[in-house]
Amino acid sequence: MLSAAAFEAALRAIGAERYHNLHPFHRRLHGGQLTKGQVQAWALNRYYYQRCIPLKDAALIARAEDPALRREWRSRLVDHDGETEGDGGIVRWLKLAEGLGLDRDYVASTRGILPGTRFAVEAYVHFVAERSLLEAVASSLTELFSPAIIQERVAGMLAGYPFVTRQTLAYFDKRLTQAPRDSNFALAYVIEHARNRDEQELVLEALRFKCGVLWAQLDALYYAYVEPGYIPPGAFRPEGS
Amino acid sequence: MLSAAAFEAALRAIGAERYHNLHPFHRRLHGGQLTKGQVQAWALNRYYYQRCIPLKDAALIARAEDPALRREWRSRLVDHDGETEGDGGIVRWLKLAEGLGLDRDYVASTRGILPGTRFAVEAYVHFVAERSLLEAVASSLTELFSPAIIQERVAGMLAGYPFVTRQTLAYFDKRLTQAPRDSNFALAYVIEHARNRDEQELVLEALRFKCGVLWAQLDALYYAYVEPGYIPPGAFRPEGS
Repeated sequence: MLSAAAFEAALRAIGAERYHNLHPFHRRLHGGQLTKGQVQAWALNRYYYQRCIPLKDAALIARAEDPALRREWRSRLVDHDGETEGDGGIVRWLKLAEGLGLDRDYVASTRGILPGTRFAVEAYVHFVAERSLLEAVASSLTELFSPAIIQERVAGMLAGYPFVTRQTLAYFDKRLTQAPRDSNFALAYVIEHARNRDEQELVLEALRFKCGVLWAQLDALYYAYVEPGYIPPGAFRPEGS
Repeated sequence: MLSAAAFEAALRAIGAERYHNLHPFHRRLHGGQLTKGQVQAWALNRYYYQRCIPLKDAALIARAEDPALRREWRSRLVDHDGETEGDGGIVRWLKLAEGLGLDRDYVASTRGILPGTRFAVEAYVHFVAERSLLEAVASSLTELFSPAIIQERVAGMLAGYPFVTRQTLAYFDKRLTQAPRDSNFALAYVIEHARNRDEQELVLEALRFKCGVLWAQLDALYYAYVEPGYIPPGAFRPEGS
């Protein structure tokens, strides 16, 4: 069995190898190399991921026998759904999409998303609903790596795109405090609850799986909107494309 | 299709006919006619129902696409799991059981519950996880009838049992405000979302089902602890029985 330190190092090594900050689509997004239509496609597709997050979090709570775990995980519902109408991460993402010039109702309808987005996101929701609670918690651990990508993204997008404002990216301000709180809890949880080497491997595999969920969403975007640029029938078409 | 008023009247008629305030076990409980051991058996078995409530509520949230519904339903998680350790309805129920002289850890282990309790409660959790969202919401509507039973129960138990104190029954104080808030929301929801006569019938049937879940728990208690009093192997045995 790995020591806590070696286990954490193994988790972080997965991020260093597989987290989606390394994907060519993100390199271009953060480097100011995309067209406005490509940035819109990113925001529109990523909305589907955002809107499904509370569904997977509630699925986890529904399987957690420990009230302390449920209470802790409940804060993720609060983050995404807010306390009142117009509050929370999902609405902030819609504002981001609107700030990029997209129609809010069209984005919210999810009619224009890529099939690859839908399948990757739904695989994540099913994973959390169906695997062990330990694996479900572990699959959230990509948040360990998100503060760095958020800082890079916000700085890069503000510098790279005249159509992007600080206010448009307000979603990420909240995530800079929410994600470390959540990932610290999840990391401590998997270290405590993986009781043998096999369970540690399940945790590592869950994190690899989740890295794949994020990576596959960018693959779909890259293929449809960058290179070769074959937009599937029914999916969002940027103006002039 | 029934008018809103006729639909609500049909729901209330189900309560008038089937709600578990009418069950002989409750008649005895509230009338001061049970032994301490029988009251203990009630509290111990009902704990299993309490502890599963947030699981069914999170299962509902996990299927609710509308953030407003998720936010509203989240308050039920708060009610049962609390904001911090030692808070919330589940802990208050454990205090009730302790106040009746039961060992807290034994109650929390659920080792002593009746098979009939387990099956009825799990049928409820599965119903909420598997039926339509409309039926899942509808199955909570027994709370329409709970303020009356709570007032009758608290008054009856305080008058009928020297071993019951106001503090022991503190769980019910909170429910007097929580249940009407929740059931008003759920009633408005089913009236709005049942779009035709068939869906109204599904709602009515969900409420009948839930009345059965509550009723069956009392049947199991009555059979094991009142008459004929055959306690199944492994289930809680009151001292001296």
